[in-house]
Amino acid sequence: MTIPAYEPSTPDGTNPTLVSPISSDGNGIPGERYLIPARQGRAVRLEKSQVLSVYNPKGNQVCDFFAIMENAPSEFLSMEHTRTSIGRVYVRTADVLVTNRRRPLIEIIEDSSPGVHDILIACCDLPRYQQLGATAYHENCADNFRMSLLAINAPITHVPSPFNIWMNIPVTEAGEYSWEPPVSKAGDFIRLRAHEDCIAIMSACPQDMTPVNGAGAQPVELEFEVSFVE
Amino acid sequence: MTIPAYEPSTPDGTNPTLVSPISSDGNGIPGERYLIPARQGRAVRLEKSQVLSVYNPKGNQVCDFFAIMENAPSEFLSMEHTRTSIGRVYVRTADVLVTNRRRPLIEIIEDSSPGVHDILIACCDLPRYQQLGATAYHENCADNFRMSLLAINAPITHVPSPFNIWMNIPVTEAGEYSWEPPVSKAGDFIRLRAHEDCIAIMSACPQDMTPVNGAGAQPVELEFEVSFVE
Repeated sequence: MTIPAYEPSTPDGTNPTLVSPISSDGNGIPGERYLIPARQGRAVRLEKSQVLSVYNPKGNQVCDFFAIMENAPSEFLSMEHTRTSIGRVYVRTADVLVTNRRRPLIEIIEDSSPGVHDILIACCDLPRYQQLGATAYHENCADNFRMSLLAINAPITHVPSPFNIWMNIPVTEAGEYSWEPPVSKAGDFIRLRAHEDCIAIMSACPQDMTPVNGAGAQPVELEFEVSFVE
Repeated sequence: MTIPAYEPSTPDGTNPTLVSPISSDGNGIPGERYLIPARQGRAVRLEKSQVLSVYNPKGNQVCDFFAIMENAPSEFLSMEHTRTSIGRVYVRTADVLVTNRRRPLIEIIEDSSPGVHDILIACCDLPRYQQLGATAYHENCADNFRMSLLAINAPITHVPSPFNIWMNIPVTEAGEYSWEPPVSKAGDFIRLRAHEDCIAIMSACPQDMTPVNGAGAQPVELEFEVSFVE
């Protein structure tokens, strides 16, 4: 079987993310609360210094978070460069996450949750669900990332490794890890400050075949809002 | 200051890597031992099932290793997908490293060293050395990756996170890590089997501002050879 060459911007399937941008250009209204329905994604443009607040209404939901530099889609938030920058494999409040050119891009300025997030694991994609046993199309964060950006006509060249907000992947000293339910609670939020103009992309992770979205493995919605620039 | 949009395939500087491919198309002669001079990189094409042996003549040298699927440059060996696949943040012999489409690509079939390698840290690049204090151009693994591929006219769309052979980055339970000298010894080697036709790229890491290439921080050469297909 010949597998066609991989085209990073092409989703493996579709869901309403593709036709549900928050606005045609991805600009948000400061102070307005936007919904990310369960299993979907949304993109929002952030100006330098603007704050994005991401809310976890039910508490059990992981947000796969990505950011792409405005007008430079090959520069994006990079977990492998962030690990080098912070000297840890976990983030904490006041950390500044950097791009693949090592520029500061996203700062964690406030976190109401216990601070358990993941920067080690690739976003889920169709091949992942196929390996877990899915036989039909399964919604996934890679496709939500692609569709969120297609919905506002923003190009990409690569699906980066995400900042997995509220994802609980404890690593032992031997280097083994496990997939655990989030420790966040209903109503938790995280506030992120943009250090450059960028596009933020959030996916309400559709993972229902491991407990990363709670012991019941039931993906639910997320919410977000952007601030006025202070 | 306006920073130009990042072009992943363009090196930030140059060294002899750009004009020293092992052959014009990157094909190697099976059984021939090739040198990677200190601070340089080389690309070699591998056929499915072929074995690549990488040698560490002095023992203290890290090899930043990359692999790109033949005829599909946007699919490549991916550490974040490999971590998901193996359930660990360290590799061991018999692990199969996978691509960003989760296809098996590189299997570790033999390792004469104690098996301490890294799959967490981005390859070094010019911005990294600038942050460490370099004021002039500093050779780096990202540029060696780019130049190794430019030297054989192979396109890329992204600089992936590497498999850092012999790089010693111990991670504590708290998630902190340190940059330690390799534990490999002179003459150590690792053998890797290709599961698909691909291009392997190796960089003899030029890091001389941290001890990742030994306590003396003196980058040296590596060697490699490809096998006949059995």
